[in-house]
Amino acid sequence: MIFPYKHIIIIDKESKVPVYRQIAISIISAIKNGTLKAGTHLPSSRELAKILGVHRKTVIAGYEELDAQDWIMIVPRKYVAVSEDIPLLKPQQWGETNILTPYEKELAIPFRIIEEKAVNKNAISYPDIIIDDGHPDVRLSPIDDLLKTYRSLTSRKYAIKNANIGTTQGTLNLREELVTYLSVTRGLNISADNILITHGAQMSIYLSAQLLLRRSSNIIVGKPNYPVANKTFEETEASIIEVNVDDKGIDTDAIEKICKRKNITAVYVIPHHHYPTTVTLSVERRVKLLELSRQFSFAIIEDDYDYDYHYTSSPYLPLATGNHNGNVIYIGSFSKLLDPALRIGFMVAPKNFIKQCTAFRKIIDVGGDGYMQNALAALIKEGELKRHLKKSKKCYHQRRDFLDVLLKEKLGNYVSYTVPTAEWLFGYY
Amino acid sequence: MIFPYKHIIIIDKESKVPVYRQIAISIISAIKNGTLKAGTHLPSSRELAKILGVHRKTVIAGYEELDAQDWIMIVPRKYVAVSEDIPLLKPQQWGETNILTPYEKELAIPFRIIEEKAVNKNAISYPDIIIDDGHPDVRLSPIDDLLKTYRSLTSRKYAIKNANIGTTQGTLNLREELVTYLSVTRGLNISADNILITHGAQMSIYLSAQLLLRRSSNIIVGKPNYPVANKTFEETEASIIEVNVDDKGIDTDAIEKICKRKNITAVYVIPHHHYPTTVTLSVERRVKLLELSRQFSFAIIEDDYDYDYHYTSSPYLPLATGNHNGNVIYIGSFSKLLDPALRIGFMVAPKNFIKQCTAFRKIIDVGGDGYMQNALAALIKEGELKRHLKKSKKCYHQRRDFLDVLLKEKLGNYVSYTVPTAEWLFGYY
Repeated sequence: MIFPYKHIIIIDKESKVPVYRQIAISIISAIKNGTLKAGTHLPSSRELAKILGVHRKTVIAGYEELDAQDWIMIVPRKYVAVSEDIPLLKPQQWGETNILTPYEKELAIPFRIIEEKAVNKNAISYPDIIIDDGHPDVRLSPIDDLLKTYRSLTSRKYAIKNANIGTTQGTLNLREELVTYLSVTRGLNISADNILITHGAQMSIYLSAQLLLRRSSNIIVGKPNYPVANKTFEETEASIIEVNVDDKGIDTDAIEKICKRKNITAVYVIPHHHYPTTVTLSVERRVKLLELSRQFSFAIIEDDYDYDYHYTSSPYLPLATGNHNGNVIYIGSFSKLLDPALRIGFMVAPKNFIKQCTAFRKIIDVGGDGYMQNALAALIKEGELKRHLKKSKKCYHQRRDFLDVLLKEKLGNYVSYTVPTAEWLFGYY
Repeated sequence: MIFPYKHIIIIDKESKVPVYRQIAISIISAIKNGTLKAGTHLPSSRELAKILGVHRKTVIAGYEELDAQDWIMIVPRKYVAVSEDIPLLKPQQWGETNILTPYEKELAIPFRIIEEKAVNKNAISYPDIIIDDGHPDVRLSPIDDLLKTYRSLTSRKYAIKNANIGTTQGTLNLREELVTYLSVTRGLNISADNILITHGAQMSIYLSAQLLLRRSSNIIVGKPNYPVANKTFEETEASIIEVNVDDKGIDTDAIEKICKRKNITAVYVIPHHHYPTTVTLSVERRVKLLELSRQFSFAIIEDDYDYDYHYTSSPYLPLATGNHNGNVIYIGSFSKLLDPALRIGFMVAPKNFIKQCTAFRKIIDVGGDGYMQNALAALIKEGELKRHLKKSKKCYHQRRDFLDVLLKEKLGNYVSYTVPTAEWLFGYY
């Protein structure tokens, strides 16, 4: 009696799983549940193709898959049979099993506590609207284009050669594309050696802080400031000196006074859309800050995470583009532009600093995803990023104005606020 | 005279660029080069569709794209015209331009030097073969399946809600999938709270080291050892004590002697395929090491980056699965399995430690790519990862044996070596 393969091998031609793999999966499950025993001869590919009503090549592909996985052995021109050694992963046990499920316990060895305050949830969610502190709406982003390129980069033969190269500093491809992009959008005159690709603005802040600051250092930050940046500086045990932020940005006169009394290693500024007040640093203060940096030899950590979003006015060129001695560390990100899950940002600095940041970053996590970086490079090169930015700016602008009208109409008697020039809706103190 | 739109708007129906976007791109370029002036009225969508021989909806889509980008204004039922304000990004200049291109200088502010020795290039490359210290061949990996899922996750409406959730610790989706995966493959009995998703094994080592070690700490490592791990421990200023690795792995008797004299905070071990000698820690030493860990209260940092690849013997269950008090920090990675560019790894530890590592990781780089994590979760759930592992193991095994035969045949009189049980070809001292 012939084995009822037609009932064992279930093929659903509507399924997204290729038919050859459906054949393989069915046979594996028959082997696993004992229906097909070790050593059992299977029908020839020609016979099985006839039984199942599929092309012979499909059956051959299924058999090859099974052979590659050691479920069957193929003896060419002779027979196909279920393997004698069924390839189940059987790790070897040793010692006694821990019935106490050790990971329910606490780690009893002393370790450093990174105190984490209760998270301040700023996001307001509706079924279709999310108001938070600046995540992009991924539905507007050209993620599909990005992934299409990613796929083609991994499928080509040269994928192996390309992807592993230089991912600690970031692929040369993306860094070279950024040289042009940062020149066009920000007037920066740099080379690929001045760029380190990171997992986002936060990693650039962390690397800069770790390399610049130590227990004896002083760093100046705005008050209020992006709290995660403060936390990052605290990690280095440096002293954090807060300077007021008013409607022109951080108070540079106050910085000058402090510099006369103390040795300052670095000043952290967010020149566009200061977090959380959304103000932009005025021209006078920009000039003054660069002067002070030259005079007192401090580094400026310029966190320009939000340069690309402006509604009613053009952005100012970064401090990094201004007249400085190479002591501006410029930080940017693509997470705000495309997708908060896309962890790609960058740091621009003199080569000697980039080199050490790269060496340090190697210890932290080796590097980033080279394919994704090259896919992003292609997106920038083809102008797709610029197109996306224009479209999404317009869309966010309209949403802002729509909400503004609604708020004034419905809640005008109860709330007052300033409409920001960026994508943020509320300054929240 | 009607404007020669047919000559300005070039449509290539074979192109991968959608026709509506080709229309938009052509019009933008005509605006940019001055062919179409500000205020010029464009034909109605119906007229242009006729001129170009495309569907009217295609023209409308093109016009909407142009409108979204502010290149044209659409006055419904009246006219469509080239915008008066052409939307070029014109950042505002301020202060003097720095003609000295500041980033050619060195950063003159003192900063920490992470000494990087000249890289020891171990890879041997041929046009189609690369021999290195253990990168997977991406051509064998189911990257396509992974990216297909990634795309579907970003395209759906719920993408926004899903992707931002909990990416510092890793998506719950992937952590839950790993609970099952690590139970099936390694016998680990844990919950999603015991897992932190990192960018790979190296990040897990870095986080553990930073939290466990300080200047006064002692850590034991193998000699020879994975050099990047040593570098990571050096960063904490802890003292590194080296213990010989022989053909049974790290010498546990030597560890015992040291523990009697000194307070040891942690022992770093690579139980499978120790880097660079490829030896596996013997059963007796596994039992002994766990005993010592209980007796002397030290943490074991178990770097099991290569658990999944075995050719001739089954793997041993990890130390983490053995009888311990919750003081084993277990480290694994998917970069070795799928793609070195795919930066996803994990750490398993008691909840109190995972919580602090998560808080610390937030400062370093906020988190990973939530979509990619969920795509990987789907790959594991559908059994695709397991199938891939079986196939690629077989393929690597064959390549190893093929090279072994070739080496014996061609160079047998000149070289001697031990064929390793893992994917490595040579132990290199």
